[in-house]
Amino acid sequence: MTPKVSIIMGSTSDLKIMEEAAKFFDEMEIPYEINALSAHRVPELVMDFAKNAHKRGIKVVIAGAGGAAHLPGVIAALTPLPVIGIPIKSSNSIDGWDSILSILQMPAGIPVATMALDGARNGAILAAQIMATGDEALMGKVLEFKATLAKKIEKANAELAQVKMKFKTN
Amino acid sequence: MTPKVSIIMGSTSDLKIMEEAAKFFDEMEIPYEINALSAHRVPELVMDFAKNAHKRGIKVVIAGAGGAAHLPGVIAALTPLPVIGIPIKSSNSIDGWDSILSILQMPAGIPVATMALDGARNGAILAAQIMATGDEALMGKVLEFKATLAKKIEKANAELAQVKMKFKTN
Amino acid sequence: MTPKVSIIMGSTSDLKIMEEAAKFFDEMEIPYEINALSAHRVPELVMDFAKNAHKRGIKVVIAGAGGAAHLPGVIAALTPLPVIGIPIKSSNSIDGWDSILSILQMPAGIPVATMALDGARNGAILAAQIMATGDEALMGKVLEFKATLAKKIEKANAELAQVKMKFKTN
Amino acid sequence: MTPKVSIIMGSTSDLKIMEEAAKFFDEMEIPYEINALSAHRVPELVMDFAKNAHKRGIKVVIAGAGGAAHLPGVIAALTPLPVIGIPIKSSNSIDGWDSILSILQMPAGIPVATMALDGARNGAILAAQIMATGDEALMGKVLEFKATLAKKIEKANAELAQVKMKFKTN
Amino acid sequence: MTPKVSIIMGSTSDLKIMEEAAKFFDEMEIPYEINALSAHRVPELVMDFAKNAHKRGIKVVIAGAGGAAHLPGVIAALTPLPVIGIPIKSSNSIDGWDSILSILQMPAGIPVATMALDGARNGAILAAQIMATGDEALMGKVLEFKATLAKKIEKANAELAQVKMKFKTN
Amino acid sequence: MTPKVSIIMGSTSDLKIMEEAAKFFDEMEIPYEINALSAHRVPELVMDFAKNAHKRGIKVVIAGAGGAAHLPGVIAALTPLPVIGIPIKSSNSIDGWDSILSILQMPAGIPVATMALDGARNGAILAAQIMATGDEALMGKVLEFKATLAKKIEKANAELAQVKMKFKTN
Amino acid sequence: MTPKVSIIMGSTSDLKIMEEAAKFFDEMEIPYEINALSAHRVPELVMDFAKNAHKRGIKVVIAGAGGAAHLPGVIAALTPLPVIGIPIKSSNSIDGWDSILSILQMPAGIPVATMALDGARNGAILAAQIMATGDEALMGKVLEFKATLAKKIEKANAELAQVKMKFKTN
Amino acid sequence: MTPKVSIIMGSTSDLKIMEEAAKFFDEMEIPYEINALSAHRVPELVMDFAKNAHKRGIKVVIAGAGGAAHLPGVIAALTPLPVIGIPIKSSNSIDGWDSILSILQMPAGIPVATMALDGARNGAILAAQIMATGDEALMGKVLEFKATLAKKIEKANAELAQVKMKFKTN
Repeated sequence: MTPKVSIIMGSTSDLKIMEEAAKFFDEMEIPYEINALSAHRVPELVMDFAKNAHKRGIKVVIAGAGGAAHLPGVIAALTPLPVIGIPIKSSNSIDGWDSILSILQMPAGIPVATMALDGARNGAILAAQIMATGDEALMGKVLEFKATLAKKIEKANAELAQVKMKFKTN
Repeated sequence: MTPKVSIIMGSTSDLKIMEEAAKFFDEMEIPYEINALSAHRVPELVMDFAKNAHKRGIKVVIAGAGGAAHLPGVIAALTPLPVIGIPIKSSNSIDGWDSILSILQMPAGIPVATMALDGARNGAILAAQIMATGDEALMGKVLEFKATLAKKIEKANAELAQVKMKFKTN
Repeated sequence: MTPKVSIIMGSTSDLKIMEEAAKFFDEMEIPYEINALSAHRVPELVMDFAKNAHKRGIKVVIAGAGGAAHLPGVIAALTPLPVIGIPIKSSNSIDGWDSILSILQMPAGIPVATMALDGARNGAILAAQIMATGDEALMGKVLEFKATLAKKIEKANAELAQVKMKFKTN
Repeated sequence: MTPKVSIIMGSTSDLKIMEEAAKFFDEMEIPYEINALSAHRVPELVMDFAKNAHKRGIKVVIAGAGGAAHLPGVIAALTPLPVIGIPIKSSNSIDGWDSILSILQMPAGIPVATMALDGARNGAILAAQIMATGDEALMGKVLEFKATLAKKIEKANAELAQVKMKFKTN
Repeated sequence: MTPKVSIIMGSTSDLKIMEEAAKFFDEMEIPYEINALSAHRVPELVMDFAKNAHKRGIKVVIAGAGGAAHLPGVIAALTPLPVIGIPIKSSNSIDGWDSILSILQMPAGIPVATMALDGARNGAILAAQIMATGDEALMGKVLEFKATLAKKIEKANAELAQVKMKFKTN
Repeated sequence: MTPKVSIIMGSTSDLKIMEEAAKFFDEMEIPYEINALSAHRVPELVMDFAKNAHKRGIKVVIAGAGGAAHLPGVIAALTPLPVIGIPIKSSNSIDGWDSILSILQMPAGIPVATMALDGARNGAILAAQIMATGDEALMGKVLEFKATLAKKIEKANAELAQVKMKFKTN
Repeated sequence: MTPKVSIIMGSTSDLKIMEEAAKFFDEMEIPYEINALSAHRVPELVMDFAKNAHKRGIKVVIAGAGGAAHLPGVIAALTPLPVIGIPIKSSNSIDGWDSILSILQMPAGIPVATMALDGARNGAILAAQIMATGDEALMGKVLEFKATLAKKIEKANAELAQVKMKFKTN
Repeated sequence: MTPKVSIIMGSTSDLKIMEEAAKFFDEMEIPYEINALSAHRVPELVMDFAKNAHKRGIKVVIAGAGGAAHLPGVIAALTPLPVIGIPIKSSNSIDGWDSILSILQMPAGIPVATMALDGARNGAILAAQIMATGDEALMGKVLEFKATLAKKIEKANAELAQVKMKFKTN
């Protein structure tokens, strides 16, 4: 199976965040690859990866990074593909502000689609939405997924209905 | 011509930022529409727009907003399309932090691809990259565009070469 | 009993914060309802709720939300009732700044009465004060409640009087 | 005419912000008074004011303040009325953060309904919404006012329709 | 013994921070009193306290408060004595920023000598320094105390001398 | 005349802020000196100054500094006198946050009485209050000064009474 | 003349900041080169530059960048030379926080010596200090330069001595 | 063995952070000393140390400090050597912002090479890079060290290859 999405992280300590993206692709049956890369430790590999990803059939790149998070931006510089950046609140981060600003504030010409802090699952959903713009079957799945979002609220209301308080009327 | 991208803003005072997106689409010859909408002033219109955009052939939505910027997120809740959010440093904004956080920190299930503050041009570039994942001709144009980025640096170096200082060696 | 206040939250994980509001209404014997709603997951329900709350006899809405907290603002867009927003420091929040700014920085025309971070009890007190402006009996209760605030200080002073230190003179 | 709302500010330099509240009350034909008070300069007057406002028929207090903005909170401590706080970005303020946090982060028992930075007009709208909970005629005016909000979007769309760009399709 | 310093806090939960001030006064043999007060719960008591403290022989007031910390400023408004404010990082505080800014950013005319977050011991040292400006014997004690500060460094160096590492030369 | 207060700044560009302190001392007829010093440029002079100020009859030091503002803390390390720090929003400052935190967050043992950003006048008022704790005549002047604060509010109310609006009732 | 320092910037709009570094090298008679590079626009050139700079006799690299400032870190990843990063408050920056955090918060293994916002002159001074560790003649110049710092204070004191105020004693 | 680097900290509680620097020097076989100093507790010792370090053969100073971190800057004022500052997130720090800004925002003339929060190891690497500019053997070691950085990524990829998920393709 050729992967359509490439999930990248700087270290296996980010895996607990980034595997949320993988789980969503498993739910949606979208093939993906997971690799470690670092703009600072293996810049040549990053360059090779970024220049060639679209030639291998990759459609979207999802890159997570913490601290002075350069990885998503450096990949975005070299690929024509949409790059989704996941700021990670790693242990050496200043409450996540460093990773957010290092990913978000990219200069004109090199966008990175920035997600919420630790928002890897949303990164995967966006990737599916991106691929669905050119794939009707996947668009169907995205629409189905969107329809499930309401269920969390239904379930919450069922639970809240069980809560008994004196002047609560429902 | 059917628009492929929908550019949305909350007020015409945002036009000077958001027209940077339009200019890029003109360069890339991608048809688009520009409208004003507001999650707070015309919520029903937002709902109609968001539910139907993909049925009209729109592939990507770019929404700019300032302050407590709810527009991109409210649209994202109702469309299967990728939504790109442009935080705008409007006059009533607290240095832009309010618009950035209101757009970026979306809950799980409803991603918004957040750009840098006032980063409308990057929003348009990302939109082109998104559409190019399913459109080979556009991918060619994106690759060409990427190649032009280096020119800014060439030009800067030519200018810097003109600067004369005593111990400058180049 | 017809509810006079509607307490809304995005998820049952917010209940431990929001039930502080409910407890105050129990103390004051003001009937209320508690429901889950989400501007992003069930926007139509939010719209129905917001358009009709005042027709059902609801006088005030108290809405708690974390992260990019759009719920209070989206409700405020559609109801003529005062909306009290409770920023919640949820697990995915950036120290609460995102929820505070998303609720506080509403555009002109659509106010949300913003409380302190996790300040659900204060939200309920404000709701009582609001309803008391048109209800003399409730105004009496509010005045009684205000009078009890001093007791916390009396109790603290009694405790501090017990603390023995060498050069402490009281 | 007995005033129903009391608008308070710490200095006439805040008048250019706070008069937005007065203008809204003029539009809505709600009688109001405007005074200067200061928790730090005339604390006894603040105390007298706060203890007696509800006895004079005042229904809501709107207090604007900058810097270490104690005025809204100190009034709220002594009145049973809803107090709306307007953080003002005065010249000695740190980008408004000081006034926002000094007004917003009130302790349990003493709520202040905090508006956006410089959001005096929204403070007045909230005051009208509060009074409307016990006044059907005013509720009618509030509903009318809400209906006018959409017009700003209609006007913006009319303007945007005039903008001509090459690949703009509307 | 007549107290020379008055230590004030809003709640006994602040005692663990504020007792650091008391301990320093015990070391320096300066008589003090400890009380709970609240600008929001017992404003009249605060007013009485502030107007009369200097008449009772109090020379300095040390007031600790968290959140929207109005207590030091409200006391400072009514006393001719120096007021030292201790911002406290209480549980409902936003990392302490709210208490720091509410105490620090006082308007012209009403200074509060602001200490570091939770810096009650420094507040007491400053109080001693203040009283020493008019009391030679106390000035002697302050000078002695200052001389002891170097000991922490001597002790640290003794400990560091014990640390053995390969290329460590001392 | 022997100076009783020493006003210190790092550069004459801070004079426009720091002269507010001088003006207050002129009003109160308290003799003072003004000098430039720098913890980074002339550390030995700072050391000499700090060690000897109290021997020359100086009672309080007021030091203003911007950016990484070390001057107040370095003086406080070597003098038994109270040191008042004025954070200055100089041109190279990050909105004043750097100077505030560099002055405020002093370690245990070495307090600096921190004033609001650019709050030199408040620094002088605090200095007068400090000296008044041991000087009855000065205490009288401080009480007189405090009494004048209310006048700003009286004047503001006189101005506000002149403002004519339709539904304004006072 | 072979350059010993390489000054790099992302765009000629940064020249007004970065030329402060060049001026210092002119004063110290240290040969340098100035070029434009961009981690995002010409990543291969950055890689070539970084890998080879030390082979050409370059001893220190000074790189200025604004926004999501990746340039200093990406160079540091590939050179054994010390890299000095200058965060620049460019027009698209969020008060400089983005450039500071993107440069400062580098991961373990790849240090960047970060200077104050817009601190290019200090970057050059540090570069001279670095080269002086292996160059006695330059060390002599650095010591001379350090000695001149005190003059700014002497000059300021001369100016302050001219200021006449009533109770100023010097 | 004469030490070439001096590691300084304000208290042994910083040792757990600062020993990361020592460990790196052990790896690189660079002799160093470790001492405690404090700009506030032993200013004369700091002055002696700073004036004489370069005469004893020290090439680089690495100083760690938390809160209002003046130590690196005060040393930098008196030594011609490069000073590397390590902001430490000590218990009394405000999330590290105070130590970062107190070290980073040094005035013109007195640079401190600021590292990431708690970034002592990077401080040591930078020190080695600095000394290597005048020491070919050490440059060789630095190049070797740089080459090892890639191994962390190789190891991470080996681990990620073990992770089995349904649609993971590698």
